[in-house]
Amino acid sequence: MNNKIEIFDSTLRDGAQAEGISFSVEDKIKIVRALDKLGISYVEAGNPGSNPKDLEFFKRIKNEKFKYTKLTAFGSTRRANIATEEDDNLQSLLDANTPAVAIFGKSWDYHVTEIIKTTLEENLAMIKDTIAFLKSKGKEVVFDAEHFYDGYKSNPEYALASLEAAKEGGADWLVLCETNGGAFPDEIYRITKEVVNKFPIKVGIHCHNDGGMAVANTIMAVEAGATQVQGTYIGFGERCGNVNLSTVIANLQLKREKKCILEDQMVNLTSTARLLAEVANIAMNEREPYIGNSAFAHKGGMHIDGVSKSPKSFEHIDPRKVGNKRRVLMSEVSGKSTLLSKMQKVNPNIKKNSPETQNLIDTLKKLEHEGYQFEGAESTFELVIRKHLGKYKPFFELKYYKIIEENHARGDNTSSALVKITVDGKDEMTVAEGVGPVNALDKALRKALETFYPQLKEVYLKDYKVRVLDTDTATEAKVRVLIESTDGYNLWTTVGVSTDIIEASWIALVDSIEYKLIKDIEEKVRAYI
Amino acid sequence: MNNKIEIFDSTLRDGAQAEGISFSVEDKIKIVRALDKLGISYVEAGNPGSNPKDLEFFKRIKNEKFKYTKLTAFGSTRRANIATEEDDNLQSLLDANTPAVAIFGKSWDYHVTEIIKTTLEENLAMIKDTIAFLKSKGKEVVFDAEHFYDGYKSNPEYALASLEAAKEGGADWLVLCETNGGAFPDEIYRITKEVVNKFPIKVGIHCHNDGGMAVANTIMAVEAGATQVQGTYIGFGERCGNVNLSTVIANLQLKREKKCILEDQMVNLTSTARLLAEVANIAMNEREPYIGNSAFAHKGGMHIDGVSKSPKSFEHIDPRKVGNKRRVLMSEVSGKSTLLSKMQKVNPNIKKNSPETQNLIDTLKKLEHEGYQFEGAESTFELVIRKHLGKYKPFFELKYYKIIEENHARGDNTSSALVKITVDGKDEMTVAEGVGPVNALDKALRKALETFYPQLKEVYLKDYKVRVLDTDTATEAKVRVLIESTDGYNLWTTVGVSTDIIEASWIALVDSIEYKLIKDIEEKVRAYI
Repeated sequence: MNNKIEIFDSTLRDGAQAEGISFSVEDKIKIVRALDKLGISYVEAGNPGSNPKDLEFFKRIKNEKFKYTKLTAFGSTRRANIATEEDDNLQSLLDANTPAVAIFGKSWDYHVTEIIKTTLEENLAMIKDTIAFLKSKGKEVVFDAEHFYDGYKSNPEYALASLEAAKEGGADWLVLCETNGGAFPDEIYRITKEVVNKFPIKVGIHCHNDGGMAVANTIMAVEAGATQVQGTYIGFGERCGNVNLSTVIANLQLKREKKCILEDQMVNLTSTARLLAEVANIAMNEREPYIGNSAFAHKGGMHIDGVSKSPKSFEHIDPRKVGNKRRVLMSEVSGKSTLLSKMQKVNPNIKKNSPETQNLIDTLKKLEHEGYQFEGAESTFELVIRKHLGKYKPFFELKYYKIIEENHARGDNTSSALVKITVDGKDEMTVAEGVGPVNALDKALRKALETFYPQLKEVYLKDYKVRVLDTDTATEAKVRVLIESTDGYNLWTTVGVSTDIIEASWIALVDSIEYKLIKDIEEKVRAYI
Repeated sequence: MNNKIEIFDSTLRDGAQAEGISFSVEDKIKIVRALDKLGISYVEAGNPGSNPKDLEFFKRIKNEKFKYTKLTAFGSTRRANIATEEDDNLQSLLDANTPAVAIFGKSWDYHVTEIIKTTLEENLAMIKDTIAFLKSKGKEVVFDAEHFYDGYKSNPEYALASLEAAKEGGADWLVLCETNGGAFPDEIYRITKEVVNKFPIKVGIHCHNDGGMAVANTIMAVEAGATQVQGTYIGFGERCGNVNLSTVIANLQLKREKKCILEDQMVNLTSTARLLAEVANIAMNEREPYIGNSAFAHKGGMHIDGVSKSPKSFEHIDPRKVGNKRRVLMSEVSGKSTLLSKMQKVNPNIKKNSPETQNLIDTLKKLEHEGYQFEGAESTFELVIRKHLGKYKPFFELKYYKIIEENHARGDNTSSALVKITVDGKDEMTVAEGVGPVNALDKALRKALETFYPQLKEVYLKDYKVRVLDTDTATEAKVRVLIESTDGYNLWTTVGVSTDIIEASWIALVDSIEYKLIKDIEEKVRAYI
C-alpha cells in the first residue's frame, strides 16, 4: 500500500493573504529553501498574474535547483469569453517558468452567476480550456476547485461537472477547496469519498480554519482517499488562516503511518516553524500543537508529577520527535516534585520532607499572592531558592536611589537617576540620564557596579515587559516587570513586583545583575575543578 | 427532540493551568459573572483542595446568586486506602459550598498502577465511594473520567468499569476526558457512541488540543450523543489548551441547531472573549474562529471583490451573529468611509473629498507609526479629530511637572510629584505623594485642576495598562499607556505613547480629563437646546 501524502505548502501565496504578513523576495527564497530541506513536495510561491513582486521572485529563483520541492505558480482560469492564448494572467503564469501550476476555478454555481457573472457553461469551458492549454505547455496541473464543498452542498451535479471539466482538460490533480472554512469533518469525509470513488485522478484537500476544524477536516479527507494536502506551514492565511501543515504532518506521519516529509526531518518540524515565524516577522501562537513553546509545558501539580514518573502519562507524543521539548512550569498549581528537582540543583541534599521544602512552598505561595510569577522568570526563581537555602550573599548594598524627572511645557524633559551603593565597605555614587526613569536608573546602577564588576559591561537588557495586575485600582495597581538579559552567550529572565513601576524594575534589574555574577563564579569554580 | 447542550466552562480551573495565566480572586468573580450572563450552564471555578486561593474565592462568592450558572468546585477522588470522611481534599470541596462538584478519577489502567500506584480494584472503589459520599451531601456530581479514550484504547473493559463505578456511586454525569489531546475525531465518535449506548446516564466530553482537533473531536462526541461540553471559553489550558468553547458554541448553535447559550446572547460571543482576554491579561490569538479580530478580515483582491458583491461568497456566517465585524484590509476606500462617519460626528459638513479627510488619514498614519493604536482608545481618537478640525481648545496650560522618587535601603520610599499649571492666567501649583510616580502625578494634576473644574472630583481611573512596544530595545523601548476613566456614569479610554512611561501616562491622563470636560460642556449645550 502506498502511504505517501504529497504536502503542498502555500505559505507564500495563501499565507501572504493573512493580516499583517508581507514577504520580500529574499524572505520567499529563504522559505522555499527551508521547506525543500524538509521534503515538502510542492511550494506554491505566488500569483505572477496578479502581483508583479511575485513574478520578480520567480525570475530570481529560476536558476536554483531544489531537491524535493516542485515550485508552483498560482493563477485563475482564463477570463470569460476570451481565448486562453490572449489571457495575460495565463501568460504571466507561463513566464514564471515553474514545473507545476495550480489553477483555481469555480465549482459553486452561485459564484459563477453572482460573482464572476458568467454562464454555467462558459465556466466549465474556462476550466477545461485553461487546463488543456497548460498541459500542452508541459506543465503538471493542479486544479483547485474553489468552494467545492459549499458548491456540492448547493448543487452537487454542477460541482462534479466542474471536476469533470478539469479531468477532460487533463488535470493531474483535483484539489477540493473548503474555501470559506466553515464545514464539518463528517461532511468532508462523505463528500471527499464520493469524489475519490468517482474520478480516476488523484484528489487533494485544501481547508481553511473558520470553524476551528481545518486540521480534522484535512485528516478526514485523507481518510477518504485524498493524497495531496494543501495548507500553510504554521497556519496563517486569509481570515482565520489555512490548515496548519505542521500539525497535519505530525498527526499523519506519527499517528496514521502516512509519509508526508522526510523521516529524518521530523525533528526539524519545530525549528522550521520558528524560522518561518521569524522570516514572516510574526509572533507565533505558542499554544500551537507540536511546535509551540507551550505544547509540552506542564503546570498542574498532578501533571508534573505524572510526567516525572512517565512522560506518556500526560504527553501524546515524545516532544523530541518533532524537535520540541518538555517544560515544567513553576506556579501555585505545580507541585512539590518540580520544586524539589530545582532545589536539588542548588543543594543535592535536600529531600522532599526536608523542612526547607515546605518552607519554600510557603514562601512561593506568598510571593505569588503578591503578584510574582516565575514561569517566565527562571533566574529570579533560582535566586529565591538560593536565598532560602542560604546559598546567596549580596554583591552590593544599596544606600538609596533617587529619581528626578522634569517635564516642562517647552518640551525640555529629562529623566535622571542617582544611585549610591556600597561594595566591601567602599561607597560608590553615580548619576545618569535616560529616555525615561527606568532607563536612567538602569544606566546609573550599571555605572556604579562596573567599577567593582567589570564583566557587567558585556551585559545588556534584551527585553522589558510590564504587566499591570488588578488593573481596576488603576495607577495604584501593582505592576510586574519582566526583564530578559544577555551577555552575548546566555539569556536569563528576572521579575519584580511593586505598586511602583520604578521599584518593580529595580528589583528585576538587581536580580539580573546578581544572577550574572553568581553564574560567573560558578563557571570559575567549574573550570578550577 | 431535546437539542440542549450544557456548556461547562473551566477557564478558572483548567484555564488557570495554562502558561502565563494567573487569576486574582477579583478576576475570577468578573469571569463568573460574564459567563453567567451568556447563559453558560456550569462554571468550574477552582480546586479548593489543592489551592487555598481557590478556597478563598469560593468563600468570597458564596452569597452571590447566578441566574444560569451552577458554580462547580473541582477535586479528585479520595486518596487510596482511606475513608472518604478522612480525606482533607474532599472536606475542602464541601467547604466550597457549590451546588455541583466535578470529580476526576482514573480510567486508564496504566495510570492507576504506574502513576497513582494503587490497585485496579481500589481505584474503582475510590471512584464509587467518593461519588456516593458527595451524593449523600446533596451535590450534583460530574464524574470526569480522566484519560478515558487512551484508557479505552489500552484496556476497554477497565475504562468502562471506571464508568460503571461512577454510575454505582450515583454520578449525574459521565464526562469522557481526552486528557492528552492527541485523539482523532473518528475514534472519538466511535468510542463515545459506545458509551452513550451502554450507559443510561448523561454523557459529556472534555477535549484538549494537542493534535489541533479539539473542536472537531468535541463536535463528533456531540454527534455521538454527548450533551455536556467541557472546555475553556477562549481555549487556554494545559499545554496546547482545552477546546475553545467560543468556537464550539458557535459551530453547534449556528450550524447544528443545538442550544448551548441564550439565543439573544450569541451577539456577545466576541465581546465576552475580549473581556476574558483582558481579565486574564493575555493577547488573544486574533485568528481565532468567530471571535478573532482577523476572523472576518479580507485581504486578497478577489476576496474583497467577492464580499463586496455578496458577503456569503467568502464568509461562512454573518459576523454580526457573533458580535464580530467584517474588515477589509489595506483598502483606502473602506478606511475612508469609516473615518468620515467619525469626522461627521464632530463636523457634519465634512465630505469624503474634503482636504481635511486626507490630512487626517496622514496624521493617523503618522501616529500609528509612532505606536498609537486607537481601537481601544476611542476618546483619544475623538480628541485627535477635534484638534484636527479646530474643534478643540485646551482647558489648562502645563508649566511643568517634576517627579521625585527616593528609595532608601531602610525601606523609606516615597514618590512625589509637583505640578504647575495655568488656567485663564491664574497659576496653580500642587504637590502630592503616591504609591508610585504615576499615581503621584495623577493625584497632583487632579488637585491642581479641581480648583478650576470641581466636577473632576467625581472622575476616577478604572483601569491602567502598559504595553512595551519593540521590547528588544528594553528600557529604552516605547511604551503605550491605556487609561480607562469613569465619572460613575460614563466610561472612556485614552492612550499615550512615549519612551518615558511617566510621560506616556501624562499624555493619557490629560486626554482623559479634557475628554470629560468637553463632554460636560456638550451636555450643558444639549440641555440648553
